[in-house]
Amino acid sequence: MSGPLGWVRDHMPVLGALAEEYRDTQPFAGHTVAVNSHLEAKTGRLIEVIAAAGADVLVTGSEPYSTQAAVVAALEEHERITLFVEAGMDEKAWASGQHELLAASPDLIIDDGCELIAKVHADHPGVASGVIGAAEQTTAGITRLEAMESDGILQFPVFGVNDTPMKHHFDNVHGTGESSLANLMITTNMMLSGATVVVAGYGFCGRGIARKARGLGAQTIVTEVDPRKALAAYMDGHRVMSLEEAAPKAEYVITATGNRDVVRAEHAEAMADGAILANAGHFDVEIDVDALETAAIRVTTPREGVRQYEMADGRRINLLAAGRLVNLTGPVSQGHPAEVMDTTFAMMAVAIEAFTRDSSDLSPGLHPIPDRLDKAVAELKLDTLDVSIDSLTHRQEAYLHEWNHADMHF
Amino acid sequence: MSGPLGWVRDHMPVLGALAEEYRDTQPFAGHTVAVNSHLEAKTGRLIEVIAAAGADVLVTGSEPYSTQAAVVAALEEHERITLFVEAGMDEKAWASGQHELLAASPDLIIDDGCELIAKVHADHPGVASGVIGAAEQTTAGITRLEAMESDGILQFPVFGVNDTPMKHHFDNVHGTGESSLANLMITTNMMLSGATVVVAGYGFCGRGIARKARGLGAQTIVTEVDPRKALAAYMDGHRVMSLEEAAPKAEYVITATGNRDVVRAEHAEAMADGAILANAGHFDVEIDVDALETAAIRVTTPREGVRQYEMADGRRINLLAAGRLVNLTGPVSQGHPAEVMDTTFAMMAVAIEAFTRDSSDLSPGLHPIPDRLDKAVAELKLDTLDVSIDSLTHRQEAYLHEWNHADMHF
Amino acid sequence: MSGPLGWVRDHMPVLGALAEEYRDTQPFAGHTVAVNSHLEAKTGRLIEVIAAAGADVLVTGSEPYSTQAAVVAALEEHERITLFVEAGMDEKAWASGQHELLAASPDLIIDDGCELIAKVHADHPGVASGVIGAAEQTTAGITRLEAMESDGILQFPVFGVNDTPMKHHFDNVHGTGESSLANLMITTNMMLSGATVVVAGYGFCGRGIARKARGLGAQTIVTEVDPRKALAAYMDGHRVMSLEEAAPKAEYVITATGNRDVVRAEHAEAMADGAILANAGHFDVEIDVDALETAAIRVTTPREGVRQYEMADGRRINLLAAGRLVNLTGPVSQGHPAEVMDTTFAMMAVAIEAFTRDSSDLSPGLHPIPDRLDKAVAELKLDTLDVSIDSLTHRQEAYLHEWNHADMHF
Amino acid sequence: MSGPLGWVRDHMPVLGALAEEYRDTQPFAGHTVAVNSHLEAKTGRLIEVIAAAGADVLVTGSEPYSTQAAVVAALEEHERITLFVEAGMDEKAWASGQHELLAASPDLIIDDGCELIAKVHADHPGVASGVIGAAEQTTAGITRLEAMESDGILQFPVFGVNDTPMKHHFDNVHGTGESSLANLMITTNMMLSGATVVVAGYGFCGRGIARKARGLGAQTIVTEVDPRKALAAYMDGHRVMSLEEAAPKAEYVITATGNRDVVRAEHAEAMADGAILANAGHFDVEIDVDALETAAIRVTTPREGVRQYEMADGRRINLLAAGRLVNLTGPVSQGHPAEVMDTTFAMMAVAIEAFTRDSSDLSPGLHPIPDRLDKAVAELKLDTLDVSIDSLTHRQEAYLHEWNHADMHF
Repeated sequence: MSGPLGWVRDHMPVLGALAEEYRDTQPFAGHTVAVNSHLEAKTGRLIEVIAAAGADVLVTGSEPYSTQAAVVAALEEHERITLFVEAGMDEKAWASGQHELLAASPDLIIDDGCELIAKVHADHPGVASGVIGAAEQTTAGITRLEAMESDGILQFPVFGVNDTPMKHHFDNVHGTGESSLANLMITTNMMLSGATVVVAGYGFCGRGIARKARGLGAQTIVTEVDPRKALAAYMDGHRVMSLEEAAPKAEYVITATGNRDVVRAEHAEAMADGAILANAGHFDVEIDVDALETAAIRVTTPREGVRQYEMADGRRINLLAAGRLVNLTGPVSQGHPAEVMDTTFAMMAVAIEAFTRDSSDLSPGLHPIPDRLDKAVAELKLDTLDVSIDSLTHRQEAYLHEWNHADMHF
Repeated sequence: MSGPLGWVRDHMPVLGALAEEYRDTQPFAGHTVAVNSHLEAKTGRLIEVIAAAGADVLVTGSEPYSTQAAVVAALEEHERITLFVEAGMDEKAWASGQHELLAASPDLIIDDGCELIAKVHADHPGVASGVIGAAEQTTAGITRLEAMESDGILQFPVFGVNDTPMKHHFDNVHGTGESSLANLMITTNMMLSGATVVVAGYGFCGRGIARKARGLGAQTIVTEVDPRKALAAYMDGHRVMSLEEAAPKAEYVITATGNRDVVRAEHAEAMADGAILANAGHFDVEIDVDALETAAIRVTTPREGVRQYEMADGRRINLLAAGRLVNLTGPVSQGHPAEVMDTTFAMMAVAIEAFTRDSSDLSPGLHPIPDRLDKAVAELKLDTLDVSIDSLTHRQEAYLHEWNHADMHF
Repeated sequence: MSGPLGWVRDHMPVLGALAEEYRDTQPFAGHTVAVNSHLEAKTGRLIEVIAAAGADVLVTGSEPYSTQAAVVAALEEHERITLFVEAGMDEKAWASGQHELLAASPDLIIDDGCELIAKVHADHPGVASGVIGAAEQTTAGITRLEAMESDGILQFPVFGVNDTPMKHHFDNVHGTGESSLANLMITTNMMLSGATVVVAGYGFCGRGIARKARGLGAQTIVTEVDPRKALAAYMDGHRVMSLEEAAPKAEYVITATGNRDVVRAEHAEAMADGAILANAGHFDVEIDVDALETAAIRVTTPREGVRQYEMADGRRINLLAAGRLVNLTGPVSQGHPAEVMDTTFAMMAVAIEAFTRDSSDLSPGLHPIPDRLDKAVAELKLDTLDVSIDSLTHRQEAYLHEWNHADMHF
Repeated sequence: MSGPLGWVRDHMPVLGALAEEYRDTQPFAGHTVAVNSHLEAKTGRLIEVIAAAGADVLVTGSEPYSTQAAVVAALEEHERITLFVEAGMDEKAWASGQHELLAASPDLIIDDGCELIAKVHADHPGVASGVIGAAEQTTAGITRLEAMESDGILQFPVFGVNDTPMKHHFDNVHGTGESSLANLMITTNMMLSGATVVVAGYGFCGRGIARKARGLGAQTIVTEVDPRKALAAYMDGHRVMSLEEAAPKAEYVITATGNRDVVRAEHAEAMADGAILANAGHFDVEIDVDALETAAIRVTTPREGVRQYEMADGRRINLLAAGRLVNLTGPVSQGHPAEVMDTTFAMMAVAIEAFTRDSSDLSPGLHPIPDRLDKAVAELKLDTLDVSIDSLTHRQEAYLHEWNHADMHF
């Protein structure tokens, strides 16, 4: 139980319970599973569980920068695991690796950001036709898949693992919420109490960040493009305004929209000296880093993980983790908390396992995770927490299906 | 602006904006609209807006006990409004009134708890065939409608107003949440800080109650039957356990499940002396009041709005508002806060208005409120709050529809 | 256990435990105790406990408006209790009653707002010289006592019950905090989620109000005159600004400063149409009601408990409970929660009891409650909650008294 | 503005304002100031401000393990600063350094944990007689000073900087609270949402930790030895119980009591497999590490900063930062947030500066920081935040000093 995966093996009990079951049932025997993920201990654990369940596993990292050498080394020892990525490789080599991986013809794909799914459709049509199913875990990936689906391009069924109650509450709200703030606090050595924290986006990630920042004592402002999410934020006690109005008030701006160019030159222009920018969304596109580079007269690194852009008027705007995911690529980042990834990865595993059995005849396209799979993982998790819940009585079951409650309230 | 509706006219700005528009456009001219609602000032305001928009309005109360005499009197003055309910009427007269109302052949229905819709299908088939559409605003009503739909019985389209982001966040989470706790505090003259509050059900209502009780300083416990909601509650910081385990720890049990018999004899048996029961769900079925009556050796009224059941072993269990909705029928209750009902009722109005126009060809059955209507109300509300939000740039719009981000993160 | 005091007898367990002890020990035998308090069920319970402990009790109400007839009636049945107040009496009769009471020569005083203590010094010097001790429970009363003490006027020892950890946390933070908000919500039928709530004063009361309003989802602003309290509010996540800046943003302004004229004409002038003013401080001086009366062109009562001032420019400012304590004199108010008053009144009882024993030789002047009394009540309360705490080990006791920790951290 | 102190210079504006003032006034000219502190960037900034204000500064680190080499290097360049500590030195060398420092006869002392003050009294009586004043910033240090004072030993006046409203709210509640949790989350890569977090001690530090853990979504339990603090915790919504009861429920135990042996063998015995222990109090004595070492059959390091004790029954108990301060000595720790230390260090500076002027005749012994100094720092801080507060009107000033409010509420 030692090595880089020891700690997470102990702290991912749901995946552990699956591993035990799969060791016996070998559901992936005869399958080749491609895994694209930020390659650290927790994804390492998922990969070893899949391999131990009978699969040949082909591995790439979803970003060259988040790949950890020790995890790569640990996985290389497994006979059934082939890696197409290494820590510190440049972007060109990383991209080539992904193509090599696809050339090895996986029939199941675990993806992050829709990278492999997009590449296999664009550049490896022959491989795409042999894929029986895939699972995608990020909001940004789902957005791309929806675009692919509306273009009528998808050639195999994909489970959008992102879009389940379990994923929203655990991974997005709590996992991204907590780990983004913890990384931000450590990286800056500053505190959130009393600080004005602007959260761009009030989806599940933004909601978690805003609520937890408020719970720590921050003065929160939310920006949105959707009127209903804007109102939800308002009713939850956050101030809501356009980013243009919010920018001069911000000590921190944290993006979590899933879109590009959220923080633009005009916002940087309006910010106060010392403002801090961090991205908790996806990729590195939410903050327009090029615009900062262009506007700055000097760029320095006042602390590890902090890039400081000095403007012509003397104001200094600080960017954390180069605009990449602050909780995954910051100087002290460990990725999402282990317990959160435990349920998310268990979902990924049961999702692709379903393609080997009862979901094998699903039509090509993006599909939501069936409720039964989502619930099954939730039940597994409650078991590991030793939490009991109630069951419906027969009379209650019946009541939910009645409509003619003749004497209902007398 | 005087009279019982004056205050709410001032505090329901979204409905006010609609009223102004409808006064010109008269969308309901030639239509007869049945309204079933807890009859107090805010619903009174909705009724007068519908009438002023050209409708003949037929009115009943969704419960005989929540009908307020002053509001009835104010509405009776309107020429186009006919009331089939009065304050203090007995249940038999109330039920007869509903049938009389249906006999008057409304073609649009605004319902609460699916009462009129169920009755028109069961007992007035001729009227049902003339109805062009209805809107229902409660979770319990939707549950009944789903059962009717799965039985293939519904003869006209119904918008489930309950099930929109706007309704969930404003009415359920915040409206029910705040008003239930405020009524409970005033009715008991007790406080929530430090108290162990058990919330049965973690839907939107239960979530609001639990979060706000926690925000006031309570020690919260949530019970659920759905493993995913149970986990969400757990991750939000509430303790989660079966009601059987929770009952002996409870100072308060608040039900918000939409189901019957949630608190049963076995739970009352396990509760401590002085425990307080309140219902924030629907109807009076969530707490099994008959079971309390049967178990008690003496029933007293130690305070207005509190019924105390003394058990054979000396324990006293207190029931608020006779197990009816604590925020609507308690001794000081004023119903949901005006601002919340403002958006909900605006939604009801735009929903049935849609049947007079672009939704007129909708198939029979239960339909979700179209996003465009929900968003339109949200935008109207943000306007009244003077809140600005962001818009997507063209490049951002495009980004959401791309999938082949070749160079996305470099 | 019936009658108006039945419910509070059940919900004031600490006072109940004291009552049992005092029934045997009769600590007040031979003493005449004057009690000045808002006369409702909970103070009624304190009065009957004091009487049952052997005292002759003389009773007045601390405000004519907060006296409840049923409680007066219940107390009048006690042989040893004499009342100098009745519900609905006018202010002149009320003031005369207080002087009559003092003429009856009490030797112990339980005061509220320093009313009796001030009057006995000003107008009944002979009686003052016979008083062996008093207890005062409000911040405003303590402020007056400090002024009296600095003038060298106090002729007997007074325990400032206000100023103990127990009082601050239970009565001020939680009791005033919760009951003020609950009354405000019910009286206005509005909600706090999303609303901008300005709290004037960040003492214990203001802190409780602000924190709980934030916990319900309000957007809070705090105003202060003390830079350190202002900073504490800021760090707790509230916005802090002058009332002049805050007034135009306010949907609610709640005063809790213990001072007069906090909300003045210039602030009313700056407020938006529909703003709501409430006082949770003391007396009716925090909001300058005269200034509102003068500025208004029309005064109406749109809801029970709400006075609406219409300004020349059409703006309407709403005042709750006529500027009196919103949690004590509003239309649905029940006073502080029973459990909170339980500990406060237990403190009052043990405080004046101490003058009959070990505190009998205290010098004239204002004295803090000795820690041992405060702790004793806390322990009594924990017992009633069935909560266990830890004890220091001998080694830990010793460690707290060491200073030369030679090898402390190696 | 580069180098290891650049970032903190920018983020400690209060100290910056003082630095500017002192550069002109040179208050420490002719004085030798000893500074004992965790030697990282922020304390480095304090030291350079003191030196620039005219002092010769003698520096030691309050723990050998928390000394940062880069900061030592930066300070060594200053002519007036002499260091008696270096990163990585062993404990013996470190202790010798402290004695050498004292041998150099400082006349002002800035202490941490009462280390230098204790040593100068115990071993350097000649030096002690020349000290004109000192300032101490930790609770643990104050406890030792109180013991020294009650032994009648203190030979010079000491300002207890720990015990001011500013220090409590900023440094203890918010600084320790946030930084402890952030370090714990990063070090373990686990999350607090839903986790059962036991906080031992409900002083200012414990309160901050418990409130913020709850704000992040944890299920909190507080243990205490003081019944009033226990009740305060209970009313704030935390469960309260003895540590013996809490231990088996704990996923995390965080100590913040200022005492030794809080977590003992009997508690470790009761904990569940995987429980995590962290200390946010002082020194390394709160958790009885020796007892863990003795009880364990195997000790491993599953992650950096985590020591894992495997018990005979297979349970594994994890200890963070070797039981030292988790926010100061963990693997990613940066110490208290810069803004918090800004006000604390400004207080230290004005405190010892007072000895060079108006506090020069203070009697030997422990003295609280005078309110005027505490307020002055608060005002300076509000200035840097650009926050305005209200002032009392003349009438309000007068009101606070009146007691005979004849017509107060009519």
